[in-house]
Amino acid sequence: MTASAPGTVVPVDEIGVGARLSLAVMADDYADVILAAVACVESADLTIQTDDVSTLVRGSEQRIAEYLTAVIASAARSGHHVSAHVLLSRGCPGEVECELPVQTLERVDPPHLDPVGVQATAQWSLYPLADTPTIPGVDPDHMRDIYAAIEQARERGTFAAVENFVTRLDGDLAEILATMAAGWVLAGRSVQHVTSHAVLSLNSPTQRVSEVGASGSSPGR
Amino acid sequence: MTASAPGTVVPVDEIGVGARLSLAVMADDYADVILAAVACVESADLTIQTDDVSTLVRGSEQRIAEYLTAVIASAARSGHHVSAHVLLSRGCPGEVECELPVQTLERVDPPHLDPVGVQATAQWSLYPLADTPTIPGVDPDHMRDIYAAIEQARERGTFAAVENFVTRLDGDLAEILATMAAGWVLAGRSVQHVTSHAVLSLNSPTQRVSEVGASGSSPGR
Repeated sequence: MTASAPGTVVPVDEIGVGARLSLAVMADDYADVILAAVACVESADLTIQTDDVSTLVRGSEQRIAEYLTAVIASAARSGHHVSAHVLLSRGCPGEVECELPVQTLERVDPPHLDPVGVQATAQWSLYPLADTPTIPGVDPDHMRDIYAAIEQARERGTFAAVENFVTRLDGDLAEILATMAAGWVLAGRSVQHVTSHAVLSLNSPTQRVSEVGASGSSPGR
Repeated sequence: MTASAPGTVVPVDEIGVGARLSLAVMADDYADVILAAVACVESADLTIQTDDVSTLVRGSEQRIAEYLTAVIASAARSGHHVSAHVLLSRGCPGEVECELPVQTLERVDPPHLDPVGVQATAQWSLYPLADTPTIPGVDPDHMRDIYAAIEQARERGTFAAVENFVTRLDGDLAEILATMAAGWVLAGRSVQHVTSHAVLSLNSPTQRVSEVGASGSSPGR
């Protein structure tokens, strides 16, 4: 990583902002659908790298969110059942250590995404990884930050339910990804290292099982 | 959650041990393959609940690991390209709060799994969510715990590479899931709330892109 002087704001490309997307299309022509989905999405200003498990996307939070939305929407418009895993990460820039000057976290606005007319359901988790206070006087409390993220999901209208280990989101694909990205960005204002995972289901033939587990449910954990 | 007296060891069913599995089979007959995979796996001693995004599995760490291995292996034996997302969670038993008596974490051995003869590749993340010391004198340090988990992956021979936000594991499916579960269980000896995610790819036609990103790579973050 590049060393930064204490007190400076660390540029976005030095704080390890990025995403991984694993896109599964449940059809014999999955490869054609995925290649077509990727081909039609603008990515000249992003760093994209695909391997056999996922596609790594590096760039600004706004552009990452736009890219994920466009690729998943395009695949879903094939009409096939699509399952997508999204991982968002920030604050761990790479190589061996995970160090940044504290008290210099860049204030980033949550990405804005226009609806794309594709319905989705997601199971979403958020992980603010704060061992020590990043901002003086604010003690680390990952559950407090998770509850705040769930509250903004309620305000956005994408919140559907608390379930074991995850929060269920329902709605337009863009609004689900905007909710996920906002939770991640907002937690990142007080915690350096924040990751978020979601599994999204589109065009599913399975009716939702509404009964919750007998052992209780837990939001976003 | 059930209240437990301080000083007692909390039974496994009260500390929120469980997994979520999202299984994607990239073929027109995906539903038949998934139903057949699930049908042939013993689950009488587990709590299983399927919705449109994932299947929730509750039980002991050993039985959860066995179940995940058997279901994913069965789907992969169809010969189709399979992508699986696994979420493991412990220490957050549910409902609204996430509280357990500290200093009473049950010492669980890592699950033992026999190889199943199915090759897989995974991108794995581990999240020890410690805001405050669980064990007196041991300060929270999520990166220290992640490095320890990566070290046990090296010892098991499943470690393949450090990549942005994840660690790549290669090998027999059972050995990959045993590595993931061991990292989770071992971190859970000193941290109450620990989750782990992995995306597994089986029978992939895509050759791995070996070049790493210009912005650097980060193990397990």
